Amino acid sequence: MFHVHIHASFLECVPLLLRPENRTAFAPAFTVIDNDGTLWTEQPLYFQALYVFDRIKKMAPDHPNWKTKEPYSSVLRGDLKGALAGGEKALLEMTMATHAGLTAEEFAESVRQYLARAIHPTTKRPLTKMVFQPMLELLDLLRAGEFKIFIVSGGGIDFVRVFSEEVYGIPPERVIGSSIDAKYEVRDGKPVIVKQPSMDLIDDHEGKPVGIHRYIGRRPILAIGNSDGDFEMLEYATAGKGPRLGMILHHDDAKREFAYDKDSAIGRSVRALDEGPKRGWRIVSMKKDWKVVHPEKAE
Amino acid sequence: MFHVHIHASFLECVPLLLRPENRTAFAPAFTVIDNDGTLWTEQPLYFQALYVFDRIKKMAPDHPNWKTKEPYSSVLRGDLKGALAGGEKALLEMTMATHAGLTAEEFAESVRQYLARAIHPTTKRPLTKMVFQPMLELLDLLRAGEFKIFIVSGGGIDFVRVFSEEVYGIPPERVIGSSIDAKYEVRDGKPVIVKQPSMDLIDDHEGKPVGIHRYIGRRPILAIGNSDGDFEMLEYATAGKGPRLGMILHHDDAKREFAYDKDSAIGRSVRALDEGPKRGWRIVSMKKDWKVVHPEKAE
Repeated sequence: MFHVHIHASFLECVPLLLRPENRTAFAPAFTVIDNDGTLWTEQPLYFQALYVFDRIKKMAPDHPNWKTKEPYSSVLRGDLKGALAGGEKALLEMTMATHAGLTAEEFAESVRQYLARAIHPTTKRPLTKMVFQPMLELLDLLRAGEFKIFIVSGGGIDFVRVFSEEVYGIPPERVIGSSIDAKYEVRDGKPVIVKQPSMDLIDDHEGKPVGIHRYIGRRPILAIGNSDGDFEMLEYATAGKGPRLGMILHHDDAKREFAYDKDSAIGRSVRALDEGPKRGWRIVSMKKDWKVVHPEKAE
Repeated sequence: MFHVHIHASFLECVPLLLRPENRTAFAPAFTVIDNDGTLWTEQPLYFQALYVFDRIKKMAPDHPNWKTKEPYSSVLRGDLKGALAGGEKALLEMTMATHAGLTAEEFAESVRQYLARAIHPTTKRPLTKMVFQPMLELLDLLRAGEFKIFIVSGGGIDFVRVFSEEVYGIPPERVIGSSIDAKYEVRDGKPVIVKQPSMDLIDDHEGKPVGIHRYIGRRPILAIGNSDGDFEMLEYATAGKGPRLGMILHHDDAKREFAYDKDSAIGRSVRALDEGPKRGWRIVSMKKDWKVVHPEKAE
């Protein structure tokens, strides 16, 4: 039933971790997996950014000043390059501006509605079909081995939680991600959580081990990512005692997905690819190691 | 096998929640349970405060100024009343001063060693034997019904995580609690998490729903606490759709445990006991509803 779409080389290290004697009481089989570029596609830009741009368009009538204010004006004109000119910082600002003030339940409903209709800009497939089939099969294999699987995303925790259970079989309490502050309020007699316009955790680079400690409290034994933002997570996970494994997906398949690494603004991967092998991390070539990439093309 | 030590009245509401048709996809059976005063005793003071005082005594040789600086000097003289005169704020300050700078693994080891030898000031029993037998049996019942049980403690998340699995069967990733900031560092070549002298989350009162949202991302359907610090948690959990239940333990058994509510500095309970019944919350009398209190006295 497993790894029908995965070359053996992709999986040869995992069975070692699956042996019961390789689980210690202090480090049960916690697995941490990045989302964007590791569980699903992240090009031409993070799918949450597509959602943020969609919200900016919806909210624009109530924010007339956005017409002349960057990066909002670029978003409203459909100028992707201008919208992203301010880098991660501008993306964060737009994320907070479009999420703050919503209750947790309103936000989740808004994302749910968006994902039900959103299609990928180049493949025109639903965003939730842009997941990686070999990774879905790896999740099944790990679950069968009773690994506790956590997503550790640079993206928003509450965004990923909306679809993680349905798409990956990973429940909301096993999602770690970037977060903005939240406040408890009784609004019109109903107790709610309201999203605030200030950062809580930036779950990227050194923020990933911090997030892992916050949410799990133990050092994982298996970490999988694809970019330099995952470097510290793999460094942390592979440094403990006993068998451990770090894996880096290399996006080298321009034909079936996207090919990018050192020069990409999204999912830039320099240090992970250079230093990873010296540290014993396994570099997975999507081109060579994966028989299929996305699920609808499976079989 | 279950509730041999619990009067039926304590449990009569739970079977309703256990029915499969009462679980919705949006709100699986998440349960949130306070720790101090709900899962174990919290008198004459929080057990984590005993640990903090123990660390102050150990660290004193390196901090000569503590001899004349309150509240440290009271702690060093063994003057409990003086040590607690500054209330929760002083406790927090002492907690940060004694925890910061330790790596996560050093801290966990320090707590582990402390709990292995610590005894309760009045009963002289090990602190980990001061848990409530009827609550252990309720946990078994909820687990059998596939509830996802989370501890939601005003105490430190990393403190509770050390013993939660062994004592309650609740793994570290299902513990929510107050936290100080953490930083990722590569120290002498080893990647570690280092505790910082600044607050992250105060998981008490309105901080409890915030913590629940942060760690679970869904509204629980069952919440159990014992003090006003749990009020907002019960308010939040019992406000959603479908069957829900809030329970407040009333410490009214001076003979078998401690009797306190409105006038106690630790675990003060005024609003929870007054308003709870009007909101349909079940008040559990430890004196009347529990056949036994602590496990060693069971059978």
